[in-house]
Amino acid sequence: MREVAIIGVGMNKWGELWNKSLRDVFTEAALLAIDDAGVDHIDSMYVGCMSSGLFVGQEHLSSLLADYLGTNPIPAARIESACASGGLALRLGFIEVASGTSDIVLAGGVEKMTDVAVDGATFALSTAADQEYEVYHGITFPGLYAMMARAHMHKYGTTREQLAQVAVKNHHNGSMNPLAQFPQKVTVENVMKSVMIADPLRILDCSPITDGAAAAILCPMDLAKKITKKPLVKIIGSGNATDTIALHSRDDITEIGSTKVAGEKAFKMAGKKPENIDLAEVHDCFTIAEICVIEALGLVDKGKGGKATEDGLTALDGKIPINTSGGLKSKGHPVGATGVAQVCEVVKQLRGEAGDRQIKGAKVGLTQNMGGSGGSSVVHIMEVV
Amino acid sequence: MREVAIIGVGMNKWGELWNKSLRDVFTEAALLAIDDAGVDHIDSMYVGCMSSGLFVGQEHLSSLLADYLGTNPIPAARIESACASGGLALRLGFIEVASGTSDIVLAGGVEKMTDVAVDGATFALSTAADQEYEVYHGITFPGLYAMMARAHMHKYGTTREQLAQVAVKNHHNGSMNPLAQFPQKVTVENVMKSVMIADPLRILDCSPITDGAAAAILCPMDLAKKITKKPLVKIIGSGNATDTIALHSRDDITEIGSTKVAGEKAFKMAGKKPENIDLAEVHDCFTIAEICVIEALGLVDKGKGGKATEDGLTALDGKIPINTSGGLKSKGHPVGATGVAQVCEVVKQLRGEAGDRQIKGAKVGLTQNMGGSGGSSVVHIMEVV
Repeated sequence: MREVAIIGVGMNKWGELWNKSLRDVFTEAALLAIDDAGVDHIDSMYVGCMSSGLFVGQEHLSSLLADYLGTNPIPAARIESACASGGLALRLGFIEVASGTSDIVLAGGVEKMTDVAVDGATFALSTAADQEYEVYHGITFPGLYAMMARAHMHKYGTTREQLAQVAVKNHHNGSMNPLAQFPQKVTVENVMKSVMIADPLRILDCSPITDGAAAAILCPMDLAKKITKKPLVKIIGSGNATDTIALHSRDDITEIGSTKVAGEKAFKMAGKKPENIDLAEVHDCFTIAEICVIEALGLVDKGKGGKATEDGLTALDGKIPINTSGGLKSKGHPVGATGVAQVCEVVKQLRGEAGDRQIKGAKVGLTQNMGGSGGSSVVHIMEVV
Repeated sequence: MREVAIIGVGMNKWGELWNKSLRDVFTEAALLAIDDAGVDHIDSMYVGCMSSGLFVGQEHLSSLLADYLGTNPIPAARIESACASGGLALRLGFIEVASGTSDIVLAGGVEKMTDVAVDGATFALSTAADQEYEVYHGITFPGLYAMMARAHMHKYGTTREQLAQVAVKNHHNGSMNPLAQFPQKVTVENVMKSVMIADPLRILDCSPITDGAAAAILCPMDLAKKITKKPLVKIIGSGNATDTIALHSRDDITEIGSTKVAGEKAFKMAGKKPENIDLAEVHDCFTIAEICVIEALGLVDKGKGGKATEDGLTALDGKIPINTSGGLKSKGHPVGATGVAQVCEVVKQLRGEAGDRQIKGAKVGLTQNMGGSGGSSVVHIMEVV
């Protein structure tokens, strides 16, 4: 397999983009990435998108987006793994370049969620859970993650305040990200007094509904050296894994098994350990999710995710900064785009282009993107060379 | 890149499977393929599915289907390219094995279409067209293909009877396929007198709405030789291409540009020419589609697809047998599964296991699967070695 570099990234301003259609939103981000890479063409493209059928009544994104990006007749594929669609699109783009099938590949993600054609955004999102054994009985994602939070509090003594501190940290980071949907800073008190959604989770524990896109340009390392003068970011580890789709089928609902397995695969491939990671973007769809995920990745000890957050270990100036971009919480969560946007942040950090939120001397970064309540996860490790 | 073999295929009986859910339908076909291959595990899986969100209110098939097949935590991806989703899943499985990322990969496809959750099957299928510039103005797929048929009749003198003869041939072939949804034979008169759908296309010019799945097991050639004693079928060519999603954006609506490009890529990779193909499974979603596709692939001259059908060149005993399985017309068209089912038929034919519809001495077969009105196409060429 060939070594693969990321030579360009692009992300547009996220939010409620009612004056732009899905094709506009995607094309904007894709052109930013192409421009950042300095290439004049791409050979193939992958697009992560969870549910454009339910959100905007449009499937066949491979054709639509290649058409509107002006790149047809190149090969194109739309990849779906619920909220891990973007991370998985990046992984398949990586495999395509590594295999030698194509040289310059665009891996992007998009979701248009705020102007919903059919049955509302909560229904569309619920299709990431088990329709027959979970959703038909009335539960949606805030309820599933609330159960995970309760179990974590019961088993490990995680506190309500610690959950809030995840939101406070991520909104602080997001306040320095001009592309974030909700760059407002929040306090622990704001979170604790915000509207209850599913006990113990309140509205400021939840990531928002967002329109947005992100894209990355991949190519073989030897070609990358000829194309760009920017610092070269190499994908050194990639892992993808699945778990039961339904939460009730798991032995321990505080453990994200798919992230654990995907992380182990990525670390093994990269020849790295958790202590070698300088920063990580992880899937904080709810505050409790970030806590469970950093434990599953081995970045903190099992059961200590809440305490680590409280102690500032995951802050910008902490031992292992988590979600420097603001995470899903502050930056927004257009579900198909999230996994690719995580990679945009890590590439910017590794190149030293992250502005006020720059982690000094960052050399190795990790992204973790997951679907549903952890039914699927994708982990990537990148290093600047 | 490693050489890749198909060592197992599986397809269940297609039809209106109201007593089985999507997960049941997929798992049946996947287990048949695993059994046919004689393997006790798989390392990774790809599932083609167009619109499970709109058809049955369920996304996140990567997690759901790995879970119900009992294969989690292996990597899994759901691939969407409208009605070409299955063919594209096979292509990405092929790239994964070729790259060395995984050894034993399942590439499957599924669609559950006859018991629709949201807004009906015609709406779900219409999301393969351009929602904003085609569908919102009232057109759905029978209308789009009717325009292609009218243009072909006008430009090349293709007759209404020649369109009917595609249906007659494919239902004849399907009458020998015990897994076909509509194995009934039909006559030219039956077709010509059937209910009008979109002039000139009548109901017997259209493929049906179907529940069904299909799966194939891929592995490197050297491993295949150790695993199976069956004749080894090798993937020697793979091509994927896109075209404008909207029909009105094309210079010539009788030409399927994405199939032409994908076919050229597959032929080049395989080192074969159209005259080397012993049989082909092509995307006859409407009778006119088969005519346009065999022209785009170069299996017959441009404009001569209708005449070739009338002259029996594409019949079971013709020069280039097309859709020996019965095609989408007779076998059924569960959109995400179709591209994989085409591969099942070609593998059965190349192994000499196609029963009454066997093409004697078949060595090289081709599959062509497309999305929408040809916005995307995937072509594979396989050879028995």
